[in-house]
Order: sequence, then C-alpha cells, then structure tokens
Amino acid sequence: MEVFEAVRTVLAVRAFQDKPVPPESVQRIIEAARLTASSQNGQPWHFIVVEKRDTLGKLGKLMTHGGYVAQAPMAIVVVIDRTPFAVSDGSRAVQSMILTAWSEGIGSNWVGWLGIPEINKLLSIPDDRDVLAVVPFGYPAKTSAKGKKNRKPVSEVIFHEKFGQA
Amino acid sequence: MEVFEAVRTVLAVRAFQDKPVPPESVQRIIEAARLTASSQNGQPWHFIVVEKRDTLGKLGKLMTHGGYVAQAPMAIVVVIDRTPFAVSDGSRAVQSMILTAWSEGIGSNWVGWLGIPEINKLLSIPDDRDVLAVVPFGYPAKTSAKGKKNRKPVSEVIFHEKFGQA
Repeated sequence: MEVFEAVRTVLAVRAFQDKPVPPESVQRIIEAARLTASSQNGQPWHFIVVEKRDTLGKLGKLMTHGGYVAQAPMAIVVVIDRTPFAVSDGSRAVQSMILTAWSEGIGSNWVGWLGIPEINKLLSIPDDRDVLAVVPFGYPAKTSAKGKKNRKPVSEVIFHEKFGQA
Repeated sequence: MEVFEAVRTVLAVRAFQDKPVPPESVQRIIEAARLTASSQNGQPWHFIVVEKRDTLGKLGKLMTHGGYVAQAPMAIVVVIDRTPFAVSDGSRAVQSMILTAWSEGIGSNWVGWLGIPEINKLLSIPDDRDVLAVVPFGYPAKTSAKGKKNRKPVSEVIFHEKFGQA
C-alpha cells in the first residue's frame, strides 16, 4: 500500500480476529520501529514483542482504556530512556509501526502512556526506563469504514506563510 | 512506494535541487499531517506551509543546525499547543509527512526543537504555542545510498516477552 493511502485510511483498531500475526509481518513491524529516525540518532528505545496469551492478558488488565490488548494476538511494548527527545522519538517509531502494519492489513492502536510502573514489573523493565505505549496488533475483527476520520477542517489547521493565513 | 519500503529507505536530506515541490505533493504532505491520529483525537497542532524564498531564508538563519532550510523550496513549520500529548502527537504527524514525501521522491529532515521564539515572531505564531519542528522538503540534490542507516543492532533493541530477552 502507498504511504499516503496508508495515512489516509488507517483507523484505530480495538477488536481483533483470533488469528496470529504472521512472523514475517511481526518482523517488518519491529524493523520499522528499529529503523525509524530519531533526534541525533539517539535511538532511546527498546521494543518488547509480547505474544504469550498470559502476558497479553495481564497487560490488558493494567490498561485503563485498553483492555482489548488482552484479546490481541500480539503487542509491542515501547520502552524509552529518560532523555529529552525520547517521547518524540518513540512516537515516531510507533507511527512507523502502525503504518507498516496497516499496509499489510493489520490493525493496531496506541494504548497507554508514561507512568505504568506495573508494566515495568511485569516485563522486567529497569526502573530507569518508561513504558511510552503498548501497541496491540492483529487483523481487524470487522471491516471498518476505512478512512472515515473525524478531523478539524483544513482551514483551522493548515496555514500558509504565517499563522492564521489561509 | 510500500510503507515498509519507505521506512526502510528514507534518509535525512539536507541538500535540495532547485526545483519546486509540485502542489499536489504539498497537498498530500499536509493532508498526511492533518489526518494523523493523536491522543484522544486532540489534534493539538497547526502546520504552516512556507514557500516564500525570503521567509525560508530567515528560517534558515534562525536554525542552529539547519541552515539548509534556506535552500529548500518548501518547509512546513509544525506548531503545537501546550498540552500533555502535543510533542508526541506532533512527532507522529512529522513522521507521516516525512514518509509520505519520501514515497514521492521528496526528501526532508526534522530541524529544530521547542524553544525558538524568534520563529513565533517571524510567522505571527501566538506566544502560547510552540514550534516543535521545521521540516524542509525538496528533491534530493544527489542520489544517496538509500537505506544505509546507522542503527543499533536488533539484539540490543528488540526483546521478546520481557526486557533483555532475545
């Protein structure tokens, strides 16, 4: 799938088919994360691939708004260092993963945010690192209306030459 | 270009041909930004398309490590609100733009970071908003070795089931 087509159509997926993500797709998704550019090439990140049903279930229980992680066939836990650009860099990596997955028909969604120390404990993540996101991946349970997004209008968001100028 | 192919091959471009970015590409690049997902669909951003030579020159002078903005045919200034997720959301939008551009043969690079109030003044950006990035776009001046990236090895970055486990 073309990049713009992926950006245009990708939607948050919160319900998954009971069907594994093929190993070659998992491979491309984690490579997409690893290869993403970061500020000063700092790469302040680690990515933990979780496929064990038991661990996915425990992760789901820890997410306030992401219980569906428990039903996903796979999730990637994004761990960042405590450096000034790590949130930004990690967010770019998540975007690379979500778009790469979507182009192969695999849905996902960003779940969680900094400050879930229980996940550190569950996955043996050192205390000096933070979980930025848990991103579940899987084939969407139903065909959704691809690309039906709720976004602010162009006139409100896009300017030319200076702020406020259409 | 397939998404993974774009992620795999995209490189930072800092020298551009003296050739404009076609309007339909500019359009797709800014749409890619506007359509990017954000936390709680907050869309805490504005994108300013700069194509005036004079303004690009002034922007270049303000960037400590991005004087080449002055030579680019176009730049997009990413402006964010002061909300908790804005750096993350804005970073995802930058990634969408860079990948969309690259898939059309257009190079770019993230320049700058928060805290350049001179740009606020130059582009009439309200004081309660911050410039997250200036992203110049253009056709690369030379064919670069696509995909030759300097990244940490898989063993250092990717784990399975728990932190530190190959």
